[in-house]
Amino acid sequence: MARWEPGTRERLARAALELFTTRGFEQTTAAEIAEAVGVTERTFFRHFADKREVLFDGQERYRQAFLDGAAAAPPGATPFEVVASALRSAGAFFGEERRAFARARQAVIDANPALQERERHKRATVAAAMRGALLDRGIADPAAAVAAETTSTVFSIAFQQWISPGETRPLTQIADAVLAEVRSFAGAAS
Amino acid sequence: MARWEPGTRERLARAALELFTTRGFEQTTAAEIAEAVGVTERTFFRHFADKREVLFDGQERYRQAFLDGAAAAPPGATPFEVVASALRSAGAFFGEERRAFARARQAVIDANPALQERERHKRATVAAAMRGALLDRGIADPAAAVAAETTSTVFSIAFQQWISPGETRPLTQIADAVLAEVRSFAGAAS
Repeated sequence: MARWEPGTRERLARAALELFTTRGFEQTTAAEIAEAVGVTERTFFRHFADKREVLFDGQERYRQAFLDGAAAAPPGATPFEVVASALRSAGAFFGEERRAFARARQAVIDANPALQERERHKRATVAAAMRGALLDRGIADPAAAVAAETTSTVFSIAFQQWISPGETRPLTQIADAVLAEVRSFAGAAS
Repeated sequence: MARWEPGTRERLARAALELFTTRGFEQTTAAEIAEAVGVTERTFFRHFADKREVLFDGQERYRQAFLDGAAAAPPGATPFEVVASALRSAGAFFGEERRAFARARQAVIDANPALQERERHKRATVAAAMRGALLDRGIADPAAAVAAETTSTVFSIAFQQWISPGETRPLTQIADAVLAEVRSFAGAAS
């Protein structure tokens, strides 16, 4: 058995998503995911803490993408500029090659309230990280909180649109458009 | 036993919060809450589905307060005006007499991840209701989604401030100030 075969993790993730989609998340076991890929259950658990983590893999890199974008904004940038930079970075993290997986993943999450709660938690960690980054730049609350929550909100709305049927625009472009809506909402010239 | 004594529900809620605060949420049973008030466990369950619901009682009225405010905005109001009206209504729902309970409740929630998830869910239902109200007014997505999520975000930030130590301003006033921060964030004249 090719225990350390490159790509095992990715094959496990794809097989898991396929099973979650066809049988349902609750009805799928880690053993079945492993079997679909031809590895042992133990190998599955070497890659993922549990089957749920297949859907939330990469969360740390995701959070970091926002922080890298925030850090790339020049010193003295306004909160809006910091948020725009974070959104560009996070948007670029989700390239075209991820769209199909993201669509299928979302359908699994939409069918399961516990996974939806986990997803909301993930968004809350992004907002918390952004607030920290903004406070570190000397931006005080409530401006920091508003900017941080707006980052999370704009990204969520843009992401939902990105994975909606027939949508072909890149995520970065959609996020830009949603951020422009925030300006428009607040009565700013866009 | 005064089974239908007026105020039993409120006394149960206060006793529950007191026990959650002193012993911890997990360590408190419905039977203990009932006992503290001098009623049977069965009476407790006539008022609340479970001990968690003591903390989320009134959620429907809470959601309705936003919707009432949104409905009070005149026809043709901008999304921003609808949101401002919803926030005023929801802010007024939390009068000074609720602040102490809200502070103690938040401390219990902050100590328990499952309760935090429930609280995030509650916020998500407000955003969903607001989005529905905005769509019904003929405001399309993504503007409706942005305005709805902003309602929820502004309220959450304002509410956190309202229950912070030493804060004495009414919630409506704090929510106004946070909404002004959204304008400022977006670069609009405030």
